[in-house]
Amino acid sequence: MNVPVVLMLSTLPDAAAADALAQAALDARLAACVTNLGAVSSQYHWKGVLESSQEVQLLFKTSVARSAELQRFVEARHPYETPEILVWQVDASPGYGQWVNAETQRPLHV
Amino acid sequence: MNVPVVLMLSTLPDAAAADALAQAALDARLAACVTNLGAVSSQYHWKGVLESSQEVQLLFKTSVARSAELQRFVEARHPYETPEILVWQVDASPGYGQWVNAETQRPLHV
Amino acid sequence: MNVPVVLMLSTLPDAAAADALAQAALDARLAACVTNLGAVSSQYHWKGVLESSQEVQLLFKTSVARSAELQRFVEARHPYETPEILVWQVDASPGYGQWVNAETQRPLHV
Repeated sequence: MNVPVVLMLSTLPDAAAADALAQAALDARLAACVTNLGAVSSQYHWKGVLESSQEVQLLFKTSVARSAELQRFVEARHPYETPEILVWQVDASPGYGQWVNAETQRPLHV
Repeated sequence: MNVPVVLMLSTLPDAAAADALAQAALDARLAACVTNLGAVSSQYHWKGVLESSQEVQLLFKTSVARSAELQRFVEARHPYETPEILVWQVDASPGYGQWVNAETQRPLHV
Repeated sequence: MNVPVVLMLSTLPDAAAADALAQAALDARLAACVTNLGAVSSQYHWKGVLESSQEVQLLFKTSVARSAELQRFVEARHPYETPEILVWQVDASPGYGQWVNAETQRPLHV
């Protein structure tokens, strides 16, 4: 039986910021895996002007249980004024879904 | 509270076609942001033969309210006979979701 | 009217493994199109250690009817112990959705 997990997509200004955020989320056990999708180019209106930015896109894989906490974590540490954080639920194959859930267990206080 | 927004994924034959479509959608206020995900390679059967194409992938971010109109716009301007247009709803962080909704307001006729 | 189709995302260790899996799925009519999203870099904990892997990401487009069979096919042929297989349903534009459904018809036994 497939296991629901959560994908979270965000864009960061450069590889260093992306690596730092990915590693912080993994260290906090808020994501089981973070995939750096590499350089992308975004176009958008910002304060009335058409802007174009080179960015780096990250795809976080986390559990349903930890998704809201991961989102707050990413928002708090993201360098942008209005970061793009997009979240949706998907089905994972059983082994992978169980692994995501196990890796994002809240650490015990010892 | 998160805000529902719509992701639309499409593939274009080259960077020039991708840039033109992205900019047209932004100018029409049918998308708040278009991310060029760069070069991809697609394999598929077409009229019975296995084909492989180098393409450029675009990810449009728009509001729920403007999604159907964006889709018609992309279909009408897309250079392919049967363009790939894939649409799904996601949750955006509040600031980003509000920005997407504001940027895709239908312009007032003045 | 849009047509529901299924996206399946997986990561493979290298381009050769990705090409082989994509072509096998297409030959079996379990996917209408497979897009190679190119090189990505994944970070994750594995058996207690923070690992980083260079991988190749594939995005399969298939019908709702053939999605479970595609998933079993990918799991059976994937070189990883615990492959990442992530599945979600999206809406396709009518022409594309009909094409996905037609291309993933189970072959007749003759």
